[in-house]
Amino acid sequence: MANAKEKILETALYLFNTQGSRLATTNHIAKACGISPGNLYYHYKNKEEIIRALFVQMGGEWELKIEDVTEVNFALFEEIKQLSHHLTKKYHFIHAELYALCQNDPELTRLNQETITKRKAQTKALLEMLILHEDLVPLGTEEMEFLVDSIWLYAIFWQPYNELVNPERLESVSIASTDILLGKFLVKKDK
Amino acid sequence: MANAKEKILETALYLFNTQGSRLATTNHIAKACGISPGNLYYHYKNKEEIIRALFVQMGGEWELKIEDVTEVNFALFEEIKQLSHHLTKKYHFIHAELYALCQNDPELTRLNQETITKRKAQTKALLEMLILHEDLVPLGTEEMEFLVDSIWLYAIFWQPYNELVNPERLESVSIASTDILLGKFLVKKDK
Repeated sequence: MANAKEKILETALYLFNTQGSRLATTNHIAKACGISPGNLYYHYKNKEEIIRALFVQMGGEWELKIEDVTEVNFALFEEIKQLSHHLTKKYHFIHAELYALCQNDPELTRLNQETITKRKAQTKALLEMLILHEDLVPLGTEEMEFLVDSIWLYAIFWQPYNELVNPERLESVSIASTDILLGKFLVKKDK
Repeated sequence: MANAKEKILETALYLFNTQGSRLATTNHIAKACGISPGNLYYHYKNKEEIIRALFVQMGGEWELKIEDVTEVNFALFEEIKQLSHHLTKKYHFIHAELYALCQNDPELTRLNQETITKRKAQTKALLEMLILHEDLVPLGTEEMEFLVDSIWLYAIFWQPYNELVNPERLESVSIASTDILLGKFLVKKDK
């Protein structure tokens, strides 16, 4: 049973990422899984439920990495950036279509707000630790809000933005995004 | 004749902004205009053509302001920011749905790439003038690319991002977005 659900999610993710979630129907997903539409509906009532399950699965992969953080330093920031980059690619359609998906599903809107609120609090705590360690310059309330929101703006939309605008140099721009921004808030010092 | 086309665009824009472009059909647009679907198709072959016409109309409003620039200074930058903010609101659905819209229409993808390439060149020229005037610090190639792309990332996605993440304080965050970023590249001086 668990295997059937996993298979559906995996197949749906592939189809959503390659065709976009609008074109890939539950019938397509069932067919690609080699099961009947009825069998698929036994596991997931509709496409929205599949999309929410993928959203929650992505959140789980994030938490797995972030929850056992004991030491805050730039190496950790680097790891988080790599993870974020990895998840942006793996769950590509969620990022690229996030606005339209939420517009289409109030339950996903709620889930997304809950998740981002949590992530923003984690990010703020991380930045505050970096300030305590004098790695980052002290930030006023507005600057802190801006930096946290910017980090998540980049995390969610930098990849889709570049696909639209700079498709020819996608790989080269996708990692360095927040480095330059964050660099502007670094304490200048020799270590 | 021109009036009928204008009326269709105006009505379509209102419906796309309030319901999203996926739900608002050409039949809805025709009905809201008080014309028959056949009459609408006489002017626009399909929804994609209406969306492209709105995209081009938005570009025209931008050019109108930017093309007669004779002097580059921060007051101009302020004006451009206000214009960008105004257009983001007026053509809200284009920004919020841009990725999905382009996914759905290769012709719009081409138009959008052409437009953003032009806008990025304008932005870069503006920033270079500000550097010449010693208002901005000199920028390396990578930093310049990053700043130009960031300005457009914010211009397109800051509003949709905040709708998703910070709906309760949308007005307060929408203007100040690039100020803090740009502030990081300012030459520190008393004038």
